[in-house]
Amino acid sequence: MASKTSLTNYTSDPLAAQSALWCDRYALTMAQALFTSGRHNARATFHAFSRKNPFRGGYIVTGGQNIVFEWLERHWKFDAQDIELLRHASEFTPDFLKMLETSKLELSIDAMPEGEIAFPDEPVYRVEGPLWQCLMIEGGLLNALNSQSLFATLASRLVEVAEGAPILEFGVRRAQGLGGLEASRGAWLGGVAATSNMLAEKHYGIPSSGTFAHAYVMAYEDEVQAFRDYASAMPHSGVFLVDTYDTLRGVKNALEACRKHKVDLKGIRLDSGDLTYLSKQARKLLDDAGFKDAKIIASNDLDEETIDSIHDEGGQIDVWGVGTNLVTAKAQPALGAVYKMGEIEGRDVIKLSDQVGKITIPGRLDVIRYLTPDGKQFSGDTIVRASDGMVRDGKLVQHVRSARRDQSTFGRLFQAGTLAYQPLQPAFCNGKRVAPYETIHEARDRAKLSLSRLDSAHRRLKNPHAYIVGLEQTLSDERNAMISRLRGDK
Amino acid sequence: MASKTSLTNYTSDPLAAQSALWCDRYALTMAQALFTSGRHNARATFHAFSRKNPFRGGYIVTGGQNIVFEWLERHWKFDAQDIELLRHASEFTPDFLKMLETSKLELSIDAMPEGEIAFPDEPVYRVEGPLWQCLMIEGGLLNALNSQSLFATLASRLVEVAEGAPILEFGVRRAQGLGGLEASRGAWLGGVAATSNMLAEKHYGIPSSGTFAHAYVMAYEDEVQAFRDYASAMPHSGVFLVDTYDTLRGVKNALEACRKHKVDLKGIRLDSGDLTYLSKQARKLLDDAGFKDAKIIASNDLDEETIDSIHDEGGQIDVWGVGTNLVTAKAQPALGAVYKMGEIEGRDVIKLSDQVGKITIPGRLDVIRYLTPDGKQFSGDTIVRASDGMVRDGKLVQHVRSARRDQSTFGRLFQAGTLAYQPLQPAFCNGKRVAPYETIHEARDRAKLSLSRLDSAHRRLKNPHAYIVGLEQTLSDERNAMISRLRGDK
Repeated sequence: MASKTSLTNYTSDPLAAQSALWCDRYALTMAQALFTSGRHNARATFHAFSRKNPFRGGYIVTGGQNIVFEWLERHWKFDAQDIELLRHASEFTPDFLKMLETSKLELSIDAMPEGEIAFPDEPVYRVEGPLWQCLMIEGGLLNALNSQSLFATLASRLVEVAEGAPILEFGVRRAQGLGGLEASRGAWLGGVAATSNMLAEKHYGIPSSGTFAHAYVMAYEDEVQAFRDYASAMPHSGVFLVDTYDTLRGVKNALEACRKHKVDLKGIRLDSGDLTYLSKQARKLLDDAGFKDAKIIASNDLDEETIDSIHDEGGQIDVWGVGTNLVTAKAQPALGAVYKMGEIEGRDVIKLSDQVGKITIPGRLDVIRYLTPDGKQFSGDTIVRASDGMVRDGKLVQHVRSARRDQSTFGRLFQAGTLAYQPLQPAFCNGKRVAPYETIHEARDRAKLSLSRLDSAHRRLKNPHAYIVGLEQTLSDERNAMISRLRGDK
Repeated sequence: MASKTSLTNYTSDPLAAQSALWCDRYALTMAQALFTSGRHNARATFHAFSRKNPFRGGYIVTGGQNIVFEWLERHWKFDAQDIELLRHASEFTPDFLKMLETSKLELSIDAMPEGEIAFPDEPVYRVEGPLWQCLMIEGGLLNALNSQSLFATLASRLVEVAEGAPILEFGVRRAQGLGGLEASRGAWLGGVAATSNMLAEKHYGIPSSGTFAHAYVMAYEDEVQAFRDYASAMPHSGVFLVDTYDTLRGVKNALEACRKHKVDLKGIRLDSGDLTYLSKQARKLLDDAGFKDAKIIASNDLDEETIDSIHDEGGQIDVWGVGTNLVTAKAQPALGAVYKMGEIEGRDVIKLSDQVGKITIPGRLDVIRYLTPDGKQFSGDTIVRASDGMVRDGKLVQHVRSARRDQSTFGRLFQAGTLAYQPLQPAFCNGKRVAPYETIHEARDRAKLSLSRLDSAHRRLKNPHAYIVGLEQTLSDERNAMISRLRGDK
């Protein structure tokens, strides 16, 4: 059974904060105000979602859910130390602190499992329960969602552009946060082949990769000697960094070292200079010497565009090492997912904005994702009001009319029987975890599967074809009426 | 005594990884190769430094040192679990693993204390000892240096541009890494006044700040009622978010709620719209109502330029809340500090590059920083070969001729007796910690002091006047000769 294996292999995630205080202070001041007026336990529904795809791309690989689940299940409590800390602030009353100290998680949460792909405005989480608890988990939930989804999505784009050549994540020294774990975990989720980060191997079992640095070569007076010692010590995994002094002379020295020690040259690494030119020259040297299987690994400030352009120019790169631009998500270092209320005490609520894209969707929401008749590709999503039994045995139970939110074209009718599934799955029920335990590897497999079901036009790096996420027609009508009413249009 | 206080208040830093495996895999493969050839214990010297100031600014507020010290002192060992992990890789021999398992830190490290400011190419750390150990700590050291210095420097720039108005860090939901702690810690080091991140208050004692969110107002059917409940619950700290529906109507509602409850209106928060216009209008409303002391807090995608421009246009903002742009260092999400060898077994080494700025400085280095005769301002630095007794009782013992590295102008002669100090201080001696224990607050005070000693022309946000860091004349001559020789110029 898969779940048994998962449980066995599951280990604690060092990125799950061990405190309920993984929150903004305003969660506590709001809770105090609600508590004083007796409204803290009002039943609310919140959704976490991103308004845009990052990197001007066509999708989001969602991440961080397993971190959030672990945090809520194991660490979400106010211990004596937390209460002591809050006691020193004048805002909090003894009664309120007592309530915090004796509280237990009561939320019900549905969420896309980690690695599932999402599109703009679709809830990745639906959180329901006492208003004060809904508010209290916002900061931690968004922190994990924003960072892990960002790295995972970026990694998946690098994998896409590399067209089968492995991507190695090399960024621990430039990453933000404890041990670089956040970036390494997210990058692995999104599909990189390995990391340089040993701590990520230790905590998550992500395969690590690495050879040597310029300093290793500089520690010798002679590059050939440095290579010989390396070849001699690493007969099975010799990959040589060849550009400490002169790249092509370095390749020749690597060849000489391997021949001397009868060692198989696994590969060379280029870390500077014109990677297109140098890789072509190096390939020729390697081939001529009979090392046709030796790989050429390239690094040095790589990103999607550079990889794409080296590809186009015929660069002979077999493996890409990406550091800074991946682990800092330099092109867009924040995903910007938000957490908004959809319902309070059974009343729909909406957040208006002068920016149309910032107007929320009211209600208690769910997502239906349709598949093509052969079951191989996603064919569209509809955001609907949550209700039981809309999909059974992988098929839509009733017709769903899906309105285009931009109203640029007519909507679409999905017939009962259409292949479909609901990406949001129960994760917590009245405070109890119901989400299965899984490793980051299982989440990574899910991301891979979901991405394979997304047409390549939607995965395109630049100007991707927009994947259509509609709004169920009645919900759309009700939303429009609500907007008109609140704006005083009538 | 300050040090006693420090020891008492010092608590473990959650950002110090609890493993020697906070490293790139290549640190281990290099160590294996060096071990096999008997060179692993060669005596080496490395320096960690940044080649550039971040954000096109004039300085770097260095950070992360106390994290690194704690990591090395308390957690730098290969435990049984680490060894077991490495045993599964074919590269590592039993003898090598035995060596790792029985090893102890033997490095001697001098470092600028946390918060000290540095300039391009100046060593922030000098690390000396067995070559393999020097290589092994590179990843962790750079990870902490790069991220903490980046946040601290950016925060100091925001403080500078706010001209005395407090900066609040509001970014936990967009921050990368465990609990947003990395960003909150670095921002506090660089001078922000508070954070929204409760976990940062818990772990570091950073003051937290916060009021309520739009969702709090939306949980009521009526904004006035929401405000009344808040005013009633928070009689001493009422700051009202006024822009959920209509900002200026929100201000009036806040005034009404405070008057009803005879509560002092501490302030209002604007989170959308034209902050210049709205703050002026809101100020007038507050003043007219007799709340001249009520503060106006602004947030919404703020960065240095926006703050500067709102300032210029006469916006009436008393406090700035900065989130995403601070905690992701969006303008430049990587500092790019590097770690390079200067010496091996007493032999100077240099890393050449086609880019002049990437050529390293050979040798075992130190920094001398001069002060103006009144002791109040920094007047220049010289990178020198490390040697004892260059500065005594706060004065230069011998003349130092400081060459300009860009050779654009003549160097400068600093006379014996010039007020001076050496920013690098002993941190580890043969593996034993000698650096004092200090809290992030003490490091923050140091940053503040150092920044106050830097002329405002160097602190300017755009096109700062370059602070001159010279290279000691003999060292400069030797370096130039080395470059010529290695390039085959003669």
